[in-house]
Amino acid sequence: MNADQFERTGRSAYKGWTTCATRYGDLDPNGHVNNGAINAFFEEARVSFRRDNLAEQCGDVLKGFVVAHFSVDYLAALGYPGEVEVGTVVTRIGRSSFGLAQAIFQGTACIAAAEVVAVHTDPATGKAVALPPPLRDALMDYLVSG
Amino acid sequence: MNADQFERTGRSAYKGWTTCATRYGDLDPNGHVNNGAINAFFEEARVSFRRDNLAEQCGDVLKGFVVAHFSVDYLAALGYPGEVEVGTVVTRIGRSSFGLAQAIFQGTACIAAAEVVAVHTDPATGKAVALPPPLRDALMDYLVSG
Amino acid sequence: MNADQFERTGRSAYKGWTTCATRYGDLDPNGHVNNGAINAFFEEARVSFRRDNLAEQCGDVLKGFVVAHFSVDYLAALGYPGEVEVGTVVTRIGRSSFGLAQAIFQGTACIAAAEVVAVHTDPATGKAVALPPPLRDALMDYLVSG
Amino acid sequence: MNADQFERTGRSAYKGWTTCATRYGDLDPNGHVNNGAINAFFEEARVSFRRDNLAEQCGDVLKGFVVAHFSVDYLAALGYPGEVEVGTVVTRIGRSSFGLAQAIFQGTACIAAAEVVAVHTDPATGKAVALPPPLRDALMDYLVSG
Repeated sequence: MNADQFERTGRSAYKGWTTCATRYGDLDPNGHVNNGAINAFFEEARVSFRRDNLAEQCGDVLKGFVVAHFSVDYLAALGYPGEVEVGTVVTRIGRSSFGLAQAIFQGTACIAAAEVVAVHTDPATGKAVALPPPLRDALMDYLVSG
Repeated sequence: MNADQFERTGRSAYKGWTTCATRYGDLDPNGHVNNGAINAFFEEARVSFRRDNLAEQCGDVLKGFVVAHFSVDYLAALGYPGEVEVGTVVTRIGRSSFGLAQAIFQGTACIAAAEVVAVHTDPATGKAVALPPPLRDALMDYLVSG
Repeated sequence: MNADQFERTGRSAYKGWTTCATRYGDLDPNGHVNNGAINAFFEEARVSFRRDNLAEQCGDVLKGFVVAHFSVDYLAALGYPGEVEVGTVVTRIGRSSFGLAQAIFQGTACIAAAEVVAVHTDPATGKAVALPPPLRDALMDYLVSG
Repeated sequence: MNADQFERTGRSAYKGWTTCATRYGDLDPNGHVNNGAINAFFEEARVSFRRDNLAEQCGDVLKGFVVAHFSVDYLAALGYPGEVEVGTVVTRIGRSSFGLAQAIFQGTACIAAAEVVAVHTDPATGKAVALPPPLRDALMDYLVSG
């Protein structure tokens, strides 16, 4: 099942959740939270997802995962001040990489939806390495249903 | 009374409070929240202070105030993830400007303490203008005790 | 012709160029320029592209264009200090939107390659509006060859 | 001699220079380069100053120096696009710390002027350590004249 096969802009598909607050410094000359900050919320949610769900299996949650691909649809303007909730779900588990879908919500409104390919690497060398079985198993717990 | 005449690194002097969460993107190559993010927390707390306490008196809380001077002592390293509380108090009220003291805390530990001179300006011209009496009165309510 | 039909990681397809310098503040805990900064270089190049090539046709180059979709492949780690060159080319011209392909290079090494859907909007309403013919004509001058 | 004893807003006192370009992402809702970006230019210039002038004496130029105090006067609004030049000079050399004065210019116009106290630390422990004599000697070469 891939990210196109579920409703990306609804809350029900997502299995991990992170709350982020917008900052004044996130505003752009149009008075909207800029896309760079939106992207940072997705990043924040990925780090939280690792810390909350994969810490035991992945060692240093701040290192080891490299984002190889990021794709995002910006669906609605976001204001300040405000909080958003970011949902994350695993969409694919490969040999050394895995896919995530993520979406940012205010209530039921979807602000942005993203897909990510993360590669598990050896921090020392930066090279991709096979997902260790315990990490693979932990990721399975967050695989999208369907 | 000026900012040197009260205990800047204790919580008791501050009259307005804002909570900020650190973000992964705030980390620097040393693994600490970088000083730029610390400065952004002070900015965030100033905007919140205006919105919470001065909105009625100052119109557009995102515009009109220009920081002319900012001085900060960085007292302790800050990690991620984590939340900080930022205290703000008015230290001086002038003709078109006012002084603020601010400090960032985790529990009772003071992470950084700052002093700010903010100038009230006409957004259209960018020129300093006298503080309107209602705004001056509102600022008085948050003047440091002593 | 779409972005898949030309060599996205080679310099020859791109028609507009912008130089960006990495900043110390762009570094993440791994000592690499973080993906957020990479994304900001793409943004910077889009603004430069509008200013250099479309200013006469699009009015306020800082407003009016909204990025609806952004997709990026991160291909190589980027260090500091350093400069990158960002190439931009138009890949598609629609009724109110257009597609761009972009890539970041150091010499001949491609650091990242992106695809963007930009929507022309009325800054006052935020609604999509048809590309005015002069803007459409200007975009044609930067359409990818093939 | 301290930083008050020379003309901080003129170019002649500064001995190290760094050029920075403003980015679209530096703009705030007022359409000005925000103070956080101004602060980042000062940071950028400090890192460049270490790399250009102190690399041989200070080992890892990205680590080891901790800013304990930063004070800045914002003197003029800064626009985009544009380049600034940042001047840096040593104002004081202590046992484990040293003072810097810095100023940001566009041509002869001074955009902002700052004073910094930097502490030399052991990266492993984060504790202040005495400036090694070769580093002290190198700093002397950039001590403000007077």
